[in-house]
Amino acid sequence: MNRQIILERLPEGAVTSEHFALVEGPAPQAAAGDVLCRTLLLSIDPANRAWMLEHSYRERIEPGQLMPGFTLSEIVDPGDSELAAGTIVACEAGWQEQAALPREAVDPITVRGPLSHHLGVLGITGVTAHVGLFDVGRPRPGETVLVSAAAGATGSVAGQLARLAGCRVVGIAGSAEKCAALVERLGFDAAVDRSDPDVRAALRRACPNGVDVYFDNVGGPLLDTVLARMNLGGRIVCCGVVSELEHAEHRGARLVPSVIVTRRLRMEGFIVLDHRDRWPAAEEQIAGWIASGDLVPLEDVSEGLQHAPGALVDVLAGRNLGKRLIRVADPAGPSGRAVR
Amino acid sequence: MNRQIILERLPEGAVTSEHFALVEGPAPQAAAGDVLCRTLLLSIDPANRAWMLEHSYRERIEPGQLMPGFTLSEIVDPGDSELAAGTIVACEAGWQEQAALPREAVDPITVRGPLSHHLGVLGITGVTAHVGLFDVGRPRPGETVLVSAAAGATGSVAGQLARLAGCRVVGIAGSAEKCAALVERLGFDAAVDRSDPDVRAALRRACPNGVDVYFDNVGGPLLDTVLARMNLGGRIVCCGVVSELEHAEHRGARLVPSVIVTRRLRMEGFIVLDHRDRWPAAEEQIAGWIASGDLVPLEDVSEGLQHAPGALVDVLAGRNLGKRLIRVADPAGPSGRAVR
Repeated sequence: MNRQIILERLPEGAVTSEHFALVEGPAPQAAAGDVLCRTLLLSIDPANRAWMLEHSYRERIEPGQLMPGFTLSEIVDPGDSELAAGTIVACEAGWQEQAALPREAVDPITVRGPLSHHLGVLGITGVTAHVGLFDVGRPRPGETVLVSAAAGATGSVAGQLARLAGCRVVGIAGSAEKCAALVERLGFDAAVDRSDPDVRAALRRACPNGVDVYFDNVGGPLLDTVLARMNLGGRIVCCGVVSELEHAEHRGARLVPSVIVTRRLRMEGFIVLDHRDRWPAAEEQIAGWIASGDLVPLEDVSEGLQHAPGALVDVLAGRNLGKRLIRVADPAGPSGRAVR
Repeated sequence: MNRQIILERLPEGAVTSEHFALVEGPAPQAAAGDVLCRTLLLSIDPANRAWMLEHSYRERIEPGQLMPGFTLSEIVDPGDSELAAGTIVACEAGWQEQAALPREAVDPITVRGPLSHHLGVLGITGVTAHVGLFDVGRPRPGETVLVSAAAGATGSVAGQLARLAGCRVVGIAGSAEKCAALVERLGFDAAVDRSDPDVRAALRRACPNGVDVYFDNVGGPLLDTVLARMNLGGRIVCCGVVSELEHAEHRGARLVPSVIVTRRLRMEGFIVLDHRDRWPAAEEQIAGWIASGDLVPLEDVSEGLQHAPGALVDVLAGRNLGKRLIRVADPAGPSGRAVR
């Protein structure tokens, strides 16, 4: 049997657990060229919600479909491929226990430390932070880097990378508890609670010299508040729009393009999947900083596939601290057992 | 005597001739290190209106002040400088007949062809088009470049430069007559009348392969219409916000940052005054294209300082075709007479 979570209907506005259904089907059958995988860890990302929108960067999920999602999986049956059973692969098996995938759709990984890191700091969100900060934002030592959703999977890494690049780092997060974690556990210079009744004044205090790089994961009205604090020649890394995903209407940015012109700003979007060539070096550098203790992975893991819908709802409401993951199964193979 | 136009009061909303006053004062006195200049040509620019706003890229003009403005002037008395009387200089003498300026505030020019070119195609607006298109927009041959305010001073050059770079060029302009001029006189591939009741559909027809580079001089609601047509990896050159200058409230861009992320767009502002190092090469290249007949200068010149306020009102309403200039006086010196 193969437990799966399907998207039963498309949300209008906020997604809830009611939009999903847990179903049981027969085990998947591998076709020629396929490998058979068991899902170990499932990544819960704001992108999962974006894929339910008419316009995102890929085709919309349709009602009745398996929920897609990034996973870390274990090869159960390699078919006619060169892979050994027990190999750990990164892939997009979706919200299910087992999957048959074409060989070219799975990416064998060299396990370093906990498996979970390969879906977070060493996976898509960590590499997103690296590419976004260094390739798009290009901070210089001494500059002020501001990060929104800074306690999230990508933001928590982006802020730490900016600290390691010699910047003053300020995070915006959704609670006083998260703000404390940013400063005390991750070494941010300051943090602003987005529920502060006067975020504008709090930002002014936290960024007395203005903002040079804004790593934006949320979009929405906060973007305008930050635009008013940007320095000449500032850069805005448009990484995500979490605050906009559940609004039927885009709220937009009132100061665009006026402030873009007067302050000579650069605002640039990117999707990490376009930058596969950058992944190995980014992963290598992040792994080095984890090993030296300079970069702290934040993770928020639940056990059991059935918790995936609730975890997505939490991520969209900003109730996670760090990378949100679901542990679906433990590895059976030799490489896995040692590192669970 | 020295006739001057002062800004009598700051406009709220649309500027009219009533906001200005023509006054007569004594001839300016040159202090040590100053040169004395006679204004020949005065450049009328949307930027003149931007300088009346609280937030632009420079200090606001205050009521009672001389209207600032870019000019082409002739040295009447070089003081103790190395300049000869009769030298033609680019400077910011403002809306007046004579000025005393520090030597370092005047830039002697090598006159090529008509003097007026040095305030237009070979001056700030021409160089703005060059820097904006090539340094910020970076179009590749075969791409579609869309230009707003395309019949204006900067837009008319930007579009022709894009044509010379091997792009498909589409202009947006304020009347059917201007659209015809873009296609017939300047070699644009297509033009869209912004008063078309369905600009969206007209843009779709004019840009069947989408838009790769948008050279934006206007901002406002048109930006959202264009954002919806941008191709993956597109670039938006934020050059100006003419449509926003007379609105008390910024209207903003509804699709920012959502579409910036999903289409991986880059949106970048610039002020040509930051790029002085680029001017000589840009001017040289444009002069070559004028000489070969590949680039057609469009100019709209009135005689007499008293017409400056009305000319600014016209520029802001989009009633100019090409670079709007006021001829204040004819040159007296030898280099000038030959080239009026």
